[in-house]
Amino acid sequence: MKKPLILVTNDDGITAPGLRALISAMKEIGEVIVVAPDSPQSGMGHAITIDDTLYSKRVIIDKTEDAPTEFSCSGTPADCVKLALQEILHKRPDICVSGINHGSNSSINVIYSGTMSAAIEAGIEGIPAIGFSLCDYSWEAEFSHSLKSVKKIVSQALLHGIPNGTVLNVNIPKTTTEPEGIKVCRQARANWKEKFDKRTSPTGKDYYWLTGEFELLDKGEDTDEWALANGFVSVVPTQFDLTAHHIIQQVNNWSLNE
Amino acid sequence: MKKPLILVTNDDGITAPGLRALISAMKEIGEVIVVAPDSPQSGMGHAITIDDTLYSKRVIIDKTEDAPTEFSCSGTPADCVKLALQEILHKRPDICVSGINHGSNSSINVIYSGTMSAAIEAGIEGIPAIGFSLCDYSWEAEFSHSLKSVKKIVSQALLHGIPNGTVLNVNIPKTTTEPEGIKVCRQARANWKEKFDKRTSPTGKDYYWLTGEFELLDKGEDTDEWALANGFVSVVPTQFDLTAHHIIQQVNNWSLNE
Repeated sequence: MKKPLILVTNDDGITAPGLRALISAMKEIGEVIVVAPDSPQSGMGHAITIDDTLYSKRVIIDKTEDAPTEFSCSGTPADCVKLALQEILHKRPDICVSGINHGSNSSINVIYSGTMSAAIEAGIEGIPAIGFSLCDYSWEAEFSHSLKSVKKIVSQALLHGIPNGTVLNVNIPKTTTEPEGIKVCRQARANWKEKFDKRTSPTGKDYYWLTGEFELLDKGEDTDEWALANGFVSVVPTQFDLTAHHIIQQVNNWSLNE
Repeated sequence: MKKPLILVTNDDGITAPGLRALISAMKEIGEVIVVAPDSPQSGMGHAITIDDTLYSKRVIIDKTEDAPTEFSCSGTPADCVKLALQEILHKRPDICVSGINHGSNSSINVIYSGTMSAAIEAGIEGIPAIGFSLCDYSWEAEFSHSLKSVKKIVSQALLHGIPNGTVLNVNIPKTTTEPEGIKVCRQARANWKEKFDKRTSPTGKDYYWLTGEFELLDKGEDTDEWALANGFVSVVPTQFDLTAHHIIQQVNNWSLNE
């Protein structure tokens, strides 16, 4: 059987330990090509570079014998995927994987996630795609317990295909042993309770740091937050048709054309 | 009846003609407060400012007697909404409106849209929210034919409320007269066929400009693209629960735990 071609990207930047862990796992499954941001892009949501130039260059980071071909890119995660598909790869990848992110992208975090924006961008282009995140923000996070689940999910996605219009959002709990298992979930309802830390600069200007606390608003046991809190890897099928189809009729009853 | 408090923002920046047009329309409906980016933020998706400082200051742009209170902010559209709700407003707004964007945010463009990210951010915080976009990228776009529809939609939203978990994505066709009417729609399936314009800098470095062509993949007559092509204003109820609920069972049939 021919080895699958796997496009690997992330939002923490091409030198991030989480990306290196994902590459090491993907090398066991297929032929790997890496196109990733040259600097951290966390919280970039689905940003793209419109009115600015994009740079990309071949880089060598992995010095092992089976090192993948790697390119760094000055843009966002979504830019990396666009550039990879149009300019760098000479055939369509069989799958695109993004991550492993240093920090959770479960629940409402999916909206702000550069990791998931790369996966969604690939999904829009019709390529099976998965975003992986470990619930540990530390640069020294331990990825070894994640890799078995990562490989299992990628293998199953390659075997079954991912339904059109859908990408997978995978989050992995921070554990000191293997996770309890893998659960397919829905996105939990939650938001961030922002707190701005207001300070004054040496020249007397007020400025803010954005901080906040995650607020879970959902007690469901079928959610990603429940799975993670109970030691399971969460898999949320995620779509980019944002239409609230069930609300169309209700808004149709408004007097919009009178 | 007490005048509603209306938070106005956008992604083209606080001096954009589309924002000024939206402010003028909102002043007829309620008390207006503006918190908008100090520079253009198009294509920022749902980016937020995590590892950087945020500046905000009171500005006076509108010199009329009923000028609104206005603040510019150094961050993204989502930052503006977070900052407005936590630090600038001293009560919850009755509605948040974003735009009027110079350029379409219909169909798949919603994913990349800073305009819609501001509306979605407000929606996550439980505030009724609407993003408005005119299908004309020009800075000299003519907004006068949009304002009747904008006021109608905002008034109806204030009257009926917008269902929890949903915000409205409104796009307005580029017309020389009033639009044909207002249609509630679903998001059309489409993507961008990217083309990178590869150039070489004076110092010999290769770089790219991202360009592309919009590719409509949907012939439905219930879509936003159909409405716009036929001269109607499109209203798509848009949700931030991205779960593809109908796919959960299918992925549950994979062998993830064997």
